[in-house]
Amino acid sequence: MTAPNRSTLWGRVLVDELAAGGLEAVCIAPGSRSTPLTVAFAAHPDVRVYSHLDERSAAFFALGRARRTGEPTALVCTSGTAAANFHPAVIEADRARVPLLALTADRPPELRDSGANQTIDQVKLYGDAVRWYADLPEPEADERKVRSLRTTAARALSETTGVPPGPVHLNCPFRKPLEPTADPGSVPDAFAETLAGSGRDGAFVETSAGNRRPEAGDVRSLADALEAADRPMIVAGPADPRDRIDLDPQTVAAVAERIGAPILADPLSNLRFGPHVGEADGRAADGRIVGGYDAYVDQLPEPDVVLRLGASPTSKSLRKALRDADAHQTVLDPAGAWREATFTATKLLAASPGGVFDRLLEDVDERAADSTETGWLTAFEEAERTHWSVREDARTDDALEAEPFEGAILASVFENAPDPSTVFVSNSMPIRDADRFARPRSAALSVLANRGASGIDGITSTALGAGSTTDDPLVLVTGDLAFYHDSNGLLAIDRCDVDATIVLIDNDGGGIFHKLPIESFDPPFTEQFKTPHGLEFDELASFYDLAFERVDLVDFADAYRRSLGSNGTDVLAVEFDSTRSHRRRDALEERVRESVDSDE
Amino acid sequence: MTAPNRSTLWGRVLVDELAAGGLEAVCIAPGSRSTPLTVAFAAHPDVRVYSHLDERSAAFFALGRARRTGEPTALVCTSGTAAANFHPAVIEADRARVPLLALTADRPPELRDSGANQTIDQVKLYGDAVRWYADLPEPEADERKVRSLRTTAARALSETTGVPPGPVHLNCPFRKPLEPTADPGSVPDAFAETLAGSGRDGAFVETSAGNRRPEAGDVRSLADALEAADRPMIVAGPADPRDRIDLDPQTVAAVAERIGAPILADPLSNLRFGPHVGEADGRAADGRIVGGYDAYVDQLPEPDVVLRLGASPTSKSLRKALRDADAHQTVLDPAGAWREATFTATKLLAASPGGVFDRLLEDVDERAADSTETGWLTAFEEAERTHWSVREDARTDDALEAEPFEGAILASVFENAPDPSTVFVSNSMPIRDADRFARPRSAALSVLANRGASGIDGITSTALGAGSTTDDPLVLVTGDLAFYHDSNGLLAIDRCDVDATIVLIDNDGGGIFHKLPIESFDPPFTEQFKTPHGLEFDELASFYDLAFERVDLVDFADAYRRSLGSNGTDVLAVEFDSTRSHRRRDALEERVRESVDSDE
Repeated sequence: MTAPNRSTLWGRVLVDELAAGGLEAVCIAPGSRSTPLTVAFAAHPDVRVYSHLDERSAAFFALGRARRTGEPTALVCTSGTAAANFHPAVIEADRARVPLLALTADRPPELRDSGANQTIDQVKLYGDAVRWYADLPEPEADERKVRSLRTTAARALSETTGVPPGPVHLNCPFRKPLEPTADPGSVPDAFAETLAGSGRDGAFVETSAGNRRPEAGDVRSLADALEAADRPMIVAGPADPRDRIDLDPQTVAAVAERIGAPILADPLSNLRFGPHVGEADGRAADGRIVGGYDAYVDQLPEPDVVLRLGASPTSKSLRKALRDADAHQTVLDPAGAWREATFTATKLLAASPGGVFDRLLEDVDERAADSTETGWLTAFEEAERTHWSVREDARTDDALEAEPFEGAILASVFENAPDPSTVFVSNSMPIRDADRFARPRSAALSVLANRGASGIDGITSTALGAGSTTDDPLVLVTGDLAFYHDSNGLLAIDRCDVDATIVLIDNDGGGIFHKLPIESFDPPFTEQFKTPHGLEFDELASFYDLAFERVDLVDFADAYRRSLGSNGTDVLAVEFDSTRSHRRRDALEERVRESVDSDE
Repeated sequence: MTAPNRSTLWGRVLVDELAAGGLEAVCIAPGSRSTPLTVAFAAHPDVRVYSHLDERSAAFFALGRARRTGEPTALVCTSGTAAANFHPAVIEADRARVPLLALTADRPPELRDSGANQTIDQVKLYGDAVRWYADLPEPEADERKVRSLRTTAARALSETTGVPPGPVHLNCPFRKPLEPTADPGSVPDAFAETLAGSGRDGAFVETSAGNRRPEAGDVRSLADALEAADRPMIVAGPADPRDRIDLDPQTVAAVAERIGAPILADPLSNLRFGPHVGEADGRAADGRIVGGYDAYVDQLPEPDVVLRLGASPTSKSLRKALRDADAHQTVLDPAGAWREATFTATKLLAASPGGVFDRLLEDVDERAADSTETGWLTAFEEAERTHWSVREDARTDDALEAEPFEGAILASVFENAPDPSTVFVSNSMPIRDADRFARPRSAALSVLANRGASGIDGITSTALGAGSTTDDPLVLVTGDLAFYHDSNGLLAIDRCDVDATIVLIDNDGGGIFHKLPIESFDPPFTEQFKTPHGLEFDELASFYDLAFERVDLVDFADAYRRSLGSNGTDVLAVEFDSTRSHRRRDALEERVRESVDSDE
């Protein structure tokens, strides 16, 4: 590898090793100090470069891409506060186990704390939120240094997909010249020919991140417990990005069938939607994939053995029901973390869900289901039938006109999402309504959200990043506050060539606060919590050259299907009065509970 | 102080003590976990509450307010990534010594690392960027705890204005109920009557931050050196916010006059503009306040004794000239930091500039100026006259039509800014052009920029925050990238009731990169560095209900004065071709140099 100067050499070697290690994409925000990295990435044939102008949005876009694929995405920024703008996405990547590699350019070490321009303390900038941090040495055409650089690059990439996966931060000091201009003597010609300079054949270092697999004894005793259970249950919370790859939904469905367990599948579990669901008469077959639990789970018999995977479920009533159940509860976590904040689980099995379920499928007796309590599965089947039928009754045109509610949007979004497609759901109310109103389907929907830290920042960018990796249609469901918060993210539609159908649930402020007791204290409720802003988003859409349409709730499904069938990005805005919508949500909840209760 | 529950008590006591300690304003972003703080701030009669929807913009708004006043401003957010959105502004506050108090709500300790929703590791979230960090204990109606809370609040506020001033972070865990709902027994009635509960008379704890004053011997030897100098010079870099209060420009001018030194005054030094400048024939009197140095300083004789105050000057040619000068250079820094990255200074005097200059005025002999080299001051006077005359020739209507350049906008902005007014200048090219084109004036202009870390993030919010504290007109000069980057900040114009004249220099991308060698490498220059975006900002202005006007360069001064004379916020956009503008900037630079040179 040849280079006109040390900084250019450094950038080229680093990018070459990352690309050889499998890095496929990078999000770059413009800057001067990062020139050696930007130039090297832009010149590399195997890495897709996405250019962003706001580092916060850039980082969330990279997060979305990595979340959708499970594969690391890199980030590049210049020195200074630019790097701090990555912080929110780095934290989400930490909590949600998303492989992200932040490359922050820095000034050379002698300028730290010297008052030099755009120089801050970038050492360990993201604290404990990263899996690994390294401060690269100063660029130099020194063989051992370059070997170290390649090894560091390989390791950094590997750490992003380690146990658990997550963000990694390499701080990269560069000295001028930063551009590929000649700096005679800085990189001797002979150096270009060396092993360390040119790489071996392919990657200089190959890495394999490994995964935590269960011991046979642990699987056997888990299998024993499940086989012996009267009322076994599988609870699948939001899936880690790499577990989406590692765990085959068909395997979970098969194990559930053998032991006679319902699978309570969070919309983010990768289990509520997909071919494993099966359909009969347009309905999820036999109620094994259960989606309506939030409304009625406390009305059904308690489980006695629970197998939990993924992060903590979105549904608060499900979490409460599990907390109150007198059950043996095993939590599977590939990193051995305790992601269950009611502290009710009786056993933590530190192994990847994929590894555990593969073994369970071998170990569990096919006739185990026969030993479950009479009516156990039937109760879920019936509750699901009642639940979805009440929900559907509330969605006829007449019902919607009389009683519009935001959940009807989420129901329609999921019901009409193409097979396959990616559906990204914002935090706050949309994800909660997705949990309640998204009926299980056999369509291959990749449903994603930022549930690691559950912020409303970076939502649009994360969705667009997820959509950038595939030709599947992309749907984003967001509220007005999240849409405003990441308005800068909309620039990626044009700059990064992503199309989306953006469903904007506009209730002019923080509707979720109506759910909380603060609603009764006004002031400060309206001014400081609900925060109505009166923003007219058609003008924002126009700024970003997006088609914008205000649709009524009853016309929504048509407009949504039309948008999905056409090219380009549309914003479909549905306005709601959040006070009334909350009252109606509560009333509908009550109706479901009454119906399920009368079935019992 | 009474309270229906522990969290409410905690919020009220904390806010009460901060207000008693002099806190005047807080920026709050909506959230649930922060309810006890928000409710207490909203109810307090002595604290102005600004409500923001994007925490990043909120933090920069608070930064701007504190930067303009030198007084601490508080920030409140909920738990999770919200707090990480404060990070860029916290870093700027660190580097620029701006008093900022970040109050981040947190979940109770038992939920940390448990997978609980919106729970991240907020401990020491901003690393070493804060002057002080404390994790508050869990709220409880315990007398010692409440005494500790009041003392911690007082100390936190005091630390923001310590030596050096800067950001402080209090992490505040709260447990439900978060709202002021009754939780019987949680705060005994008797407790409300105790000393710790109700505060003493006024603040429970009074604090005084102190300042570092010089030893008599140090001032004496500095005075000796200045008196004995043949070519003494005062170089004033960007002023720290609290030094703007502590240091009287008249004192600096008087000392300079006594020793016969020119004051090379950065536009951010608080010395380039103000009554101390004096004016004769509409020109700064006698060339003692020097503003044009960037163009010609290396053409004049070298100083032999230099007294430097403030941060590192904006002008690169000034920094280089100082580096190359064979001079005794004393750097004044109130915190003893070494803010001089050429490492040329011979002495660091760790004392406040205000304290040093007050003493110098007493110590320096009035006849010292007589001992300077013949022609020393005259050379600066003549260079200034020549410099500004060439600059003005380039600004006639004919010249501007033939050769438009961005610097003409900055010249006009400063020349026509009302007396008094606040002028906030973005980083990248605007601050550099302000340095070159803003002629010293006797008007009281408060000129501000984010030069701590020199990011282009948060510019609009910082400016609006600065404008929120005074009835003086506010001018913001920004480029298109910075304007896009903090577009969310525009919401504060309506929500926080601030008016501004926003001068938008729109050259469709990062014009500054034309100054760098990367310009010759295309690709990737255009796509990854200049990053033209084609955004039409009139649509953004319309989204935020702002008046928008595209003006030609020759019509700019009229439009600018008109805007300043009217209410409401106007965006005045002037479009430039950044390639051509850079060529013309260079040509004009050359013309100034030649003219000054021919004078010699």
